[in-house]
Amino acid sequence: MESAASSKAKVGLIGLGLMGQPIGMNLLKAGHTLTVWNRTTSRANELVALGAKLATSPKEVAAASDVVLTIVSDPPALESILWGADGKDSGALAGLKPGSTYIDSSTVSPALARKIAAACAERSVRFLDAPGELIFMVGGDAGTLKSVEPILGVLGKRWFHLGPNGAGQTIKLAMNMILALQVDALAEALALVTRAGLKGEDLVEVMQSSMARSGVLDVKAPNLLKGEYKPSFPLRLMHKDLGLALELANQIGVALPATAAARETYNYVKGAAKEDLDYSAVMKFWKS
Amino acid sequence: MESAASSKAKVGLIGLGLMGQPIGMNLLKAGHTLTVWNRTTSRANELVALGAKLATSPKEVAAASDVVLTIVSDPPALESILWGADGKDSGALAGLKPGSTYIDSSTVSPALARKIAAACAERSVRFLDAPGELIFMVGGDAGTLKSVEPILGVLGKRWFHLGPNGAGQTIKLAMNMILALQVDALAEALALVTRAGLKGEDLVEVMQSSMARSGVLDVKAPNLLKGEYKPSFPLRLMHKDLGLALELANQIGVALPATAAARETYNYVKGAAKEDLDYSAVMKFWKS
Amino acid sequence: MESAASSKAKVGLIGLGLMGQPIGMNLLKAGHTLTVWNRTTSRANELVALGAKLATSPKEVAAASDVVLTIVSDPPALESILWGADGKDSGALAGLKPGSTYIDSSTVSPALARKIAAACAERSVRFLDAPGELIFMVGGDAGTLKSVEPILGVLGKRWFHLGPNGAGQTIKLAMNMILALQVDALAEALALVTRAGLKGEDLVEVMQSSMARSGVLDVKAPNLLKGEYKPSFPLRLMHKDLGLALELANQIGVALPATAAARETYNYVKGAAKEDLDYSAVMKFWKS
Amino acid sequence: MESAASSKAKVGLIGLGLMGQPIGMNLLKAGHTLTVWNRTTSRANELVALGAKLATSPKEVAAASDVVLTIVSDPPALESILWGADGKDSGALAGLKPGSTYIDSSTVSPALARKIAAACAERSVRFLDAPGELIFMVGGDAGTLKSVEPILGVLGKRWFHLGPNGAGQTIKLAMNMILALQVDALAEALALVTRAGLKGEDLVEVMQSSMARSGVLDVKAPNLLKGEYKPSFPLRLMHKDLGLALELANQIGVALPATAAARETYNYVKGAAKEDLDYSAVMKFWKS
Repeated sequence: MESAASSKAKVGLIGLGLMGQPIGMNLLKAGHTLTVWNRTTSRANELVALGAKLATSPKEVAAASDVVLTIVSDPPALESILWGADGKDSGALAGLKPGSTYIDSSTVSPALARKIAAACAERSVRFLDAPGELIFMVGGDAGTLKSVEPILGVLGKRWFHLGPNGAGQTIKLAMNMILALQVDALAEALALVTRAGLKGEDLVEVMQSSMARSGVLDVKAPNLLKGEYKPSFPLRLMHKDLGLALELANQIGVALPATAAARETYNYVKGAAKEDLDYSAVMKFWKS
Repeated sequence: MESAASSKAKVGLIGLGLMGQPIGMNLLKAGHTLTVWNRTTSRANELVALGAKLATSPKEVAAASDVVLTIVSDPPALESILWGADGKDSGALAGLKPGSTYIDSSTVSPALARKIAAACAERSVRFLDAPGELIFMVGGDAGTLKSVEPILGVLGKRWFHLGPNGAGQTIKLAMNMILALQVDALAEALALVTRAGLKGEDLVEVMQSSMARSGVLDVKAPNLLKGEYKPSFPLRLMHKDLGLALELANQIGVALPATAAARETYNYVKGAAKEDLDYSAVMKFWKS
Repeated sequence: MESAASSKAKVGLIGLGLMGQPIGMNLLKAGHTLTVWNRTTSRANELVALGAKLATSPKEVAAASDVVLTIVSDPPALESILWGADGKDSGALAGLKPGSTYIDSSTVSPALARKIAAACAERSVRFLDAPGELIFMVGGDAGTLKSVEPILGVLGKRWFHLGPNGAGQTIKLAMNMILALQVDALAEALALVTRAGLKGEDLVEVMQSSMARSGVLDVKAPNLLKGEYKPSFPLRLMHKDLGLALELANQIGVALPATAAARETYNYVKGAAKEDLDYSAVMKFWKS
Repeated sequence: MESAASSKAKVGLIGLGLMGQPIGMNLLKAGHTLTVWNRTTSRANELVALGAKLATSPKEVAAASDVVLTIVSDPPALESILWGADGKDSGALAGLKPGSTYIDSSTVSPALARKIAAACAERSVRFLDAPGELIFMVGGDAGTLKSVEPILGVLGKRWFHLGPNGAGQTIKLAMNMILALQVDALAEALALVTRAGLKGEDLVEVMQSSMARSGVLDVKAPNLLKGEYKPSFPLRLMHKDLGLALELANQIGVALPATAAARETYNYVKGAAKEDLDYSAVMKFWKS
């Protein structure tokens, strides 16, 4: 299979949020021709100033590209981009060229990933579900993955081929539920020790010296101790991903009691929040 | 304050289980005079062969020692040792000498630690709650801790002074609930991806490369992937500690939804188990 | 507003399952002209033998009727009937006549009910969400409800007007989560007392004499005590409804900790079930 | 076996709270000689005015009585009364006469009931655990129950013999966890429908007409709808009973996921409460 991502590949990018913007930058720096679209057009300004072409619709991005990337916040946003807001085939799917490759890096359900894969197959388009950031979890054909490795190398530092379409999303949801539970566990423990009159900092210090150490502890403990929750990964997105994980689990009959409990705690905080918060703000359940 | 733990200190050790045995060895190697007691006498054989004196009761251990250590499996065992099985002051407390120091390294409730502290104070005995293994979480007077540091140095590599009596137990329970939830989260995620037809090994590999990495992942993921649960830290003890954490939390009005959910999952596995299992066997909830 | 349901009203009925069949019977007995459709055609035989007309598509049912009723098992089934399996407007919506009334008695999400209401409004069709059986929980315009009361009177004995479109579904989901939790609570209590060596029958007898008495106890306790779970209301549907209730709750930021816990218990049983079971089979969580 | 409760029986009553006071009244009205004790002495005033004798200790009550009744709020209170606050046999147990009968109507753990039974047996005292109010759930010897039926008939209207000592407590805990879950389920459902913009009253009305009707709905729905939580059965006691039920369940390996989730919700409200509340105030979880 020929590489879909030679140095001259025409790349399309839909979704210019926190993750999409730097990806666009890197693609331009790597010398790719870039066509972009975003629901809020102004977010494209910087990339356009650097040479990206602004399309008037997702369909136009698809029609102009050999490799199309989408990175949006949730399943409805992705469905709207792919099938069109009006349900009349005005979305990106209708524009994808036979022989082109479409990569979705949003976090959505494995079922949606498989639905997209089927729609792409009808159009002779190769599809990968590849959620992630820096590290990509990839579902789909191994040859297709091979062909876009030069582009993934521009976007991140590592990727894992995990199985057929949907596999990337499944592993991503599993990862995020673990992160959500680790932060929630830390929050429960901090709530316990501080209400008992002890210092949260002491718990964190002891943890750092023990088997309870973790990446989450390094990155999120400072937020929890200071009560500062500027969004790095927004709580509303983590809450959405917990919902997707539970939806999958309930479809295939796998009970997830702790994940279900944690989801409701995130939900409680989300329901009371007046601003956008990092998911470590789950701590507010005990301090609101 | 004079050190209670000179090189010639007479040390008493009650509880010769998985943790107590190597502690006894180290105390003998360090040149301390050692008096021991264990409910099942035969477990003392090896230490006695190396020079330890076997007492006929916890009270006798206490009467013979400047520093007494207890390490038993749960609160009832500790209460029985301290107050006597018959409630007639035949336990270790009745034997403790004024001016001596008593260190408990069992994991029990902070309330019990404070009750012991009060009973010790009546007898002019200094008390530390210091659960842990290698790393000790210490509650009690800072001067008392200072005085026994030479002995703690024989037992482990680090200790943390966390507050007044009970603080060591509180932090220990918080630590263990985090460990229990991390293992349970990993088990839920593995159940999800394997039932979805993917490889658990792949999830672990991706986690290792991400913020979801953790000490628990390094140590316990192999057990979960192989389904081998030879006890390192027994499930029945982790289950007990979750119960103590929830008891404390419910006394002071701190809701712990995910911990409560995980406790029931551990309980489910404990109820069905026919043998002693490591706490990573919580995975059996999905495979039984 | 004129009555849509005079004695000569042409009624369409889509979905001839456990609930749809007797509704069709009653409509025929009451003298209505009836056009029916069901995915599995053979289920229409009895109604056709009694005078119902069998249509070849949901669209044809709609085109032939003044009042259309749908009663299917879940949201995807309903969407397929309304919009067509192929997404090309071949479903019932495309056939509904301006001025006609459409009543959906399936249990689906309030969001889907509102989406249907909007699609109906575009076609000048009046829509009610009216889930239930014997008792209907109705969302939509009061005048529309008034106009179809003669038909509802044929189908059941009572109806409640609860608010705008979606309100019927919201109350129905709330009802079902209460039923699911009552049965789950009874199962937990029976598991506790029987494992403790006591008789489940005794618990039920004491409950009957106390404030813990309930409709659920009268109807479902015999199933739980005998371990017989022939489907009255299938577990897979109750599990689906718990999912819809939690989806709604998580959209609007209302935490439902006990419902979430119960959903996972139903999920556990569903995942292990090899046959169709009544929702009271949640008891199998403790006996599998 | 001779009746322990002839019309002239000397009855002792320890615990003059919400339940104890009317029981004392009824015993006096029925012509029994009554000796009472309460931690707060002033609560005995009314009974003393009507002829009861006020003892100076629980032990004195026991020594003066053929049948002793205790009704206190929790296990520590009961242990203190029975064994004495100082652990020196100054409690009621030390005063109980051989051949006398002791009935405990507090709600405590089955394990404590069995411990009391053993202590009574040593003293040739007959013991029944008989928690309840109006309806008594009785564990212990059938002959003993027979002998005190005249007294139970004064206290309440019905009693159930459920098994050996501990059985009364086990069934009582099972009952209370069902009540707690029913109220919590109602609260979750009301939170859902009101946040969705509908009327809680409507949900209650529909429930009254359906299988979701229950004693709890009749009694507690008005509290929940009005947000008035004057204690009938205090939340702190229901929270305690949920803890006892979970303790029992975790001892015998029965997982109770929904009960565990509900306990944390009650805990959340208890932790935030500034006043004594009825257990229906669990609703405050969503309104605080």
